[in-house]
This record gives sequence, structure tokens and C-alpha cells, in this order.
Amino acid sequence: MASPELVALAQPYLAPFLTEAVAERYRFVDLGQQPGVAPDARAVVVDGGRPFDASLREAMPRLGLIACFNAGYDGIDVEWARKHGIIVTHARHINHEDVADFAIGQVLNVYRKIGLGDRWVRDGSWQSGNRLMTRSIAGLRLGIVGLGGIGQALARRADAMRMVTSWWGPHHKSGVPWPRASSLIDLAAESDALVIAASAKPSNRGLISASVIEALGPGGMLVNVARGSLVDEAAVILALMRGTLGAAVLDVYDEEPTSPDRWAGVPNVFLSPHIAGVTDLAMRRMVELLGANLDAFFKGEPVPTPVSLAA
Amino acid sequence: MASPELVALAQPYLAPFLTEAVAERYRFVDLGQQPGVAPDARAVVVDGGRPFDASLREAMPRLGLIACFNAGYDGIDVEWARKHGIIVTHARHINHEDVADFAIGQVLNVYRKIGLGDRWVRDGSWQSGNRLMTRSIAGLRLGIVGLGGIGQALARRADAMRMVTSWWGPHHKSGVPWPRASSLIDLAAESDALVIAASAKPSNRGLISASVIEALGPGGMLVNVARGSLVDEAAVILALMRGTLGAAVLDVYDEEPTSPDRWAGVPNVFLSPHIAGVTDLAMRRMVELLGANLDAFFKGEPVPTPVSLAA
Repeated sequence: MASPELVALAQPYLAPFLTEAVAERYRFVDLGQQPGVAPDARAVVVDGGRPFDASLREAMPRLGLIACFNAGYDGIDVEWARKHGIIVTHARHINHEDVADFAIGQVLNVYRKIGLGDRWVRDGSWQSGNRLMTRSIAGLRLGIVGLGGIGQALARRADAMRMVTSWWGPHHKSGVPWPRASSLIDLAAESDALVIAASAKPSNRGLISASVIEALGPGGMLVNVARGSLVDEAAVILALMRGTLGAAVLDVYDEEPTSPDRWAGVPNVFLSPHIAGVTDLAMRRMVELLGANLDAFFKGEPVPTPVSLAA
Repeated sequence: MASPELVALAQPYLAPFLTEAVAERYRFVDLGQQPGVAPDARAVVVDGGRPFDASLREAMPRLGLIACFNAGYDGIDVEWARKHGIIVTHARHINHEDVADFAIGQVLNVYRKIGLGDRWVRDGSWQSGNRLMTRSIAGLRLGIVGLGGIGQALARRADAMRMVTSWWGPHHKSGVPWPRASSLIDLAAESDALVIAASAKPSNRGLISASVIEALGPGGMLVNVARGSLVDEAAVILALMRGTLGAAVLDVYDEEPTSPDRWAGVPNVFLSPHIAGVTDLAMRRMVELLGANLDAFFKGEPVPTPVSLAA
């Protein structure tokens, strides 16, 4: 293809995920390796979860599109972009089912002692005559914070596994079969497992506060597959150390990658390296959608998945 | 209660599970600690998965009931019992949903790298800049061997998680929405994950043979939550060592408890100490049902859950 458009890539780690089809249609310039070397770029591809450096606009004065590779766009000041006539796109409804699978997998891992069971067999605990009892998830009271794509996918799985789902979010939703709790604190108090599935915004930073964690209590489990910013991480660690929170499952953190030192000696915490939505299938579909957004933008057509300011 | 009936307990480990209500209604004699000391016992409580010592009948000439604490009764020669006028009961349809939960949890653990993710964060792999890619279970081809209570519970969960389910069993089943494969080998060849959910019988010992494992292949995962006897365990180990089987998830074994030495150095094997059906809820309900079977037997009424010879 003659004279392909120039596209800047803000995070170098994204480069290996770009499939041949997308990589061939555009000239990608890696800002990580050559910052400021794409003055002609009209589009930049970013990890929407990382803070977008507004000074990049000065380095790319023709910038008209910030294309988030992933679903989250909490790193982008969408209002600022709109004012400057910059379109923001993201990977809407691509990996919400994968994230829900992962959250359910972690609930099963904790309740049914899947990781512990493996250690029991290997370290001889079973052979020494002990028997491991696990907790049934039948009737487990699942509380979902944020009943969007992930939250609803989670609730459908929970229904099939005979859990009892409630949810909370700032807005009422019509046409959903699961009851909305009167408040976040009430939801936490009435839940065995509280799964955070809300999109992160400046307004909900620290939403899962020490009070919410206290309400969840020593019999409760916190699962965060959304964003680290939504949870008061220091309060979670303190509650786990004191035993005032039963367990925590964290895929996202204040700082990523999180330091192993932060978690050494913290009991009942199950960690993962921000992989809830990172699957082979999701990556393929995210690259396809990225290509579709770039194609539309450069053709001057409406982009398939713009970020909605109303959301 | 005056002069409660005498009930023998074949496996001492079952004693702690007997709730107060059941323990109060009968005098339990532990055969493990005092073999042959219950000549008057008319009922014996057993783990149905362990071989039943027929000589116990000589020690208990009045024996009329073998009450299996659990669902499986492969340790009991039901035909022999029938000939001697001994009723056999078991815990039918108590923990099949728990077993299905566990199997799904293990599929998620392997595909979504739940255990590995925790190790990655803790050992610094994430911090060193690596990223972990996982496999989506969307479209995963699930093969179920034995579409009974466990198999159907499993298929319902798989539907909610957008897997594609097929099954095989020796008999056709009407009214089920999942297609039956033309043979076990075909099912294995067409499955990403093959879950064994059949009840064990002398006729299906070693059903999952080296040929079935070969058909499942290097991209396939074997999950056994049924009985060790159904699977050629040596062939599984050999296939894992050679890489001709992708992964194995084993909750049951040739010999239980299995020796840790048997699995040291075997790659891609995920172990658990026979806990797929062992939950707090299931135990409570199994004890209740055991009590109901004992009560009916001693009153001369039909027992609630006799083993069916036709099954």
C-alpha cells in the first residue's frame, strides 16, 4: 500500500500484539524508543489505563485520534481531548466475558481450595492422613460493584452456579433481573464475595474504602478485576493483616507492576499480574477493532467505538 | 432415646462428619478401632469408594444395610449384596453441582493461569517486565464422559461460559441439548478439555486408555473428577512426560492418598486430594441423607436412596 499513514505507539509493550494485517496498513513509530519523533502522526495508540502525557499533543500537533488498545480509558482526560477536537476510541465489549470468567475462576480457587489442594498433595499433607474440606459456592452471596458488561457477564455465570447476586452502582438499571442494593455499604455487608467491576473515573477513586472493607468483614472476600484506583489498597492490606477482611483477590494495583515485597507476609491474598482481560482471543479482537478505528479515522468516517462522555 | 440401634462404621475418618443429630440416634461402633466388635449391627456405614470387605458379613450376621456415606458405590459388590438380602444406599444427587463447580474451576485455573499468575507476581516475573498471556475459554470444546448429574451440571455451567459441549456415554439420552459423540475416541479427538464424570464400574476400568489420551493430544487437557479406576494413570504420566498430552487435572487416583513422589517432575499436572465433591454443604446434606436411610431401614420402610442395579 502506498504512503501508509503514520501512527505513534505510546507504550512499546503493545507492539508485539499488533498483528501483521494492522502493522502492514500503517507505519507505527514507537514513542518509547524514539520520543518526539512522530511530528506528522495524526493518531496515537495507547494503553488507556496509563496516564496520557498531554505534552504529546505539542509533539504531534496534527493529533486527531487517541486509540486505546484496551477497554479502560481512565488514563485519558476525555474532556480535554474533546476540547481539542481529538477523538478517543477504546475496545468496548471485547473482553468483558473473559474478565468475568477470570473473576469466577478466582472465587472457585479460593472457596474450593484449588491451589491449596495441589500443595497438599505435593507436600505430603494428604498422605499424612489429613483431609481437606472446602466451601460450596451454592448460595454464595455475590455482590457486584458496577453492573456493566463485566458485571452482567459475571451475574449470568453466578446464576448458572447457583450463587445469589446483588449489585450496586450509582445509577438504576432497568431490565436486569438482579436486585440493586440500597448502598455500597449495604451491598458489602450482605455479600460473601464483593467483585469490583466498575470503570475507573476520577470520581470513584478509593470507592472501596476502609468502611466498605469493614462492612465486607472477616467472612468476606474482595475481588478487584477493574482498576487499582477504585480500591484503598493500604486499607485492604491492613484489614488482611488484622483479620478483619477474610480474603482479597487482586488483579490490579495502585502501582503496576506491583512489588512482591508489598505482599510478602500478607495473609489470604491471591494475586495476579493484571491478566483478567488478557487472553489470546481478546488480543486478536482488540487489534482488529484498533485497525477498524484507525481505518475509519483516516478515511474521515465515524469511528466504530468512540468513548462516550455520557458513560 | 432408649436402646438405640447399633451401627458399624467401616472407615474411622467418617466419624467427625457425623452430626450430633445422627450420632445421637444410633450407637456407632468404629470397626477401624475395634474390628469385629459389632456382631449385632444390622447396618454399616462405609465410604462407597473403598473396597467393602465381604468378610464383615460373617462378623455381622444380621447385616441388612450397607449405607454409603458418599455418592460412589464402586467399592461395593451390589449384586453380591442383593443375593444376601442386603440393601445398599448412597448419597445420590447431593454433591454433583459441587463436583461440577470444581471441574470448571480447574479448567479456569489452567486456561487463565490463576495459580501461575500468583507465582508471577510473587517471584518478580511481572516486575521484570514480562507479560502473561492467557487462553480464553470462549469456544473451548468441552467433552464430557458420562452425562449424569455431574455431567449435566458441568454442561450447564459451560453453556453460561460460552464453551461448546459434546459428550459420550454408553447409552443414548433423550431430552438433552448437547450432542453425543459417535465414540469416546471421537469425543477425545474433538475436545480441548475432556472431563471424566462417569460412575466407576468393573466394566469401565481403564476406560480412558492410552489411545483416548493420544486422541486428546498435545493441545488437550484431561480432567478426572470421577474415580481413579476410570483412567490409565500410568499412560497419563507417560503422555505428560512425552508432551503427547497437554495437561492433566486429577482429583482422584489409582491409589489414595497418592504419593507425592509419583508426580514429582511430571509436567503440566494439576493435583488435588479428592476434594471435588467434599464441601461443607455436601457433608451436611450427606449426613442428613445417611440419617434418613438409617431411619427408614430400622423402621422397615423403603430407604430414600437405594443403589439401583439398573444404573
